[in-house]
Amino acid sequence: MRPLKKVETILVLIEPAEEYSGELRRCFPESRVIFSGRDRVTEEEIRDADVILGNPPAEFLKDAGKLKLLQLQSAGADAYTPRGILPEGALLTCATGAYGPAVSEHMIASLLSVYKNLHVYRDNQTARRWRCEGAVRSLRGEKVLVLGLGDIGREFARLASAFGASVSGVKRNLSCKPDWVEAVYPLDKLPEILPQFDVVASVLPSSPETQGLFDRAMLKKMKPGSILVNAGRGSLIDSDALYDALQKGPLLAACLDVTDPEPLPPDHPLWGCRNLLLTPHTAGGFLMKETYHRVWKIALENLSAYAEGRELKNRIRLE
Amino acid sequence: MRPLKKVETILVLIEPAEEYSGELRRCFPESRVIFSGRDRVTEEEIRDADVILGNPPAEFLKDAGKLKLLQLQSAGADAYTPRGILPEGALLTCATGAYGPAVSEHMIASLLSVYKNLHVYRDNQTARRWRCEGAVRSLRGEKVLVLGLGDIGREFARLASAFGASVSGVKRNLSCKPDWVEAVYPLDKLPEILPQFDVVASVLPSSPETQGLFDRAMLKKMKPGSILVNAGRGSLIDSDALYDALQKGPLLAACLDVTDPEPLPPDHPLWGCRNLLLTPHTAGGFLMKETYHRVWKIALENLSAYAEGRELKNRIRLE
Repeated sequence: MRPLKKVETILVLIEPAEEYSGELRRCFPESRVIFSGRDRVTEEEIRDADVILGNPPAEFLKDAGKLKLLQLQSAGADAYTPRGILPEGALLTCATGAYGPAVSEHMIASLLSVYKNLHVYRDNQTARRWRCEGAVRSLRGEKVLVLGLGDIGREFARLASAFGASVSGVKRNLSCKPDWVEAVYPLDKLPEILPQFDVVASVLPSSPETQGLFDRAMLKKMKPGSILVNAGRGSLIDSDALYDALQKGPLLAACLDVTDPEPLPPDHPLWGCRNLLLTPHTAGGFLMKETYHRVWKIALENLSAYAEGRELKNRIRLE
Repeated sequence: MRPLKKVETILVLIEPAEEYSGELRRCFPESRVIFSGRDRVTEEEIRDADVILGNPPAEFLKDAGKLKLLQLQSAGADAYTPRGILPEGALLTCATGAYGPAVSEHMIASLLSVYKNLHVYRDNQTARRWRCEGAVRSLRGEKVLVLGLGDIGREFARLASAFGASVSGVKRNLSCKPDWVEAVYPLDKLPEILPQFDVVASVLPSSPETQGLFDRAMLKKMKPGSILVNAGRGSLIDSDALYDALQKGPLLAACLDVTDPEPLPPDHPLWGCRNLLLTPHTAGGFLMKETYHRVWKIALENLSAYAEGRELKNRIRLE
């Protein structure tokens, strides 16, 4: 093992930290470890930090003169990649890999809920109404398209396959085809392949290529009776066009964990769509305990790798 | 192949029958095939039938003097097993094997819906309320107990395992342990093993051993924060005791597709339990297209087997 790089001060913004503070101090006995939080971090704390674990407000980083490594607790890193946010030479790593189980399970749960009419039965329960709501669907033999095949998309593909679906995916690098995925396509083939899928599920981040991708024309290309699931970013879908696609077709239903705007204002028409299943951006975060442990595991591994001069996981190239 | 037994008249009560009428006539060109339905079948049709496919009203069978085989479209056969219902010598077969996909998927969908708070988010959607409802759970590492390991229970075990659960089961014959099940127990061990499970899911039929099995004392043995799923028969659970277990613990939630009484009357207190997910006995039936095809497949195979003197599938011993 190579000699340790000196890490004078580690600033911890991941909360809660109690469960991991012992391990952190044990692995870095000579470092000063400061426990703070995103909402209460001070400029002074940022200024002194060699390493930050967690997501500081991006505007604070102009003061981060000593920063060598920013290990985010999020999978997304958009707020930190523009030139000038991080000081020269600082490394940026994210927590990709932590959110796969939580978000993919949420997506499958939402999809099955719609397939089995559970959202309608919940409304009936409120009305104390015992009434059969007709045919239900199954993922058996359904054609599912996953947009984005990172850890969330791959885990979603695995679960959908367990229910008998045939899963295809859209990804940047077509050279490797993940397990559980039968075919991969580039994003620009989307308009062409879209009509053949019973379910389209997106975990795409926000980017110039994805913003407004599901506009009126794209939604019209979807298969009649199909379902759109979005657990990536709300900006993917034109909300007005989605409303129309839910009211007049071709969509049977949609499951949204992210919206545009977000939060969805109380007077927004989407709230009233009974064939929409809406959750308030709760698929990810630390709402599932396992995600929290996975974030800490990645953070501690990368911190050790940094100190020992080894290669970092989930390194983000700055713009 | 042995010579065909003569089947003069086949009475079809499975509806719809159009998709399979051609195959039926092709396989039995010399038989008279009568298409009717459970709600409109006549005494005369019953009297003339050598074979009935479907579920006739049990009281009509006293007139079924020529009946040799009753192939049910249901998995349950309780209504037809008491002495004196079927004429002497008639064989009884059921449609076990047809309902596995539909009912198991419904059970997993209900369970995931509760784990991810989707039922609460649906209520919030109705109120146009964007609000995080806190921690969500996952089947990863959870201990699940399945009561009944026929085709529904086994398929449920497979799906729960795909989500990372560790599944045990209760069954009559302990000599064989199905795939995806880590341990099997006899029913009389239930009070002893119950406290260790995060989820208890029943697909048990109604029988003297199962009626009222989940009474107040049994429900109190369940693990604090656990979930009870019932897609078997409503008589399994004492509804008043369940109400209390949902209000005061130990249950976190319950998912019921069957109730006692059934249908649940509008003034029943269970309707008002927000931590209960209620569906009106819609997990099975023909609501999922695949179930319908599976029932017909079993019926046609057994009809051929009967005519050719081969062994029947799903034969039910009469009391």
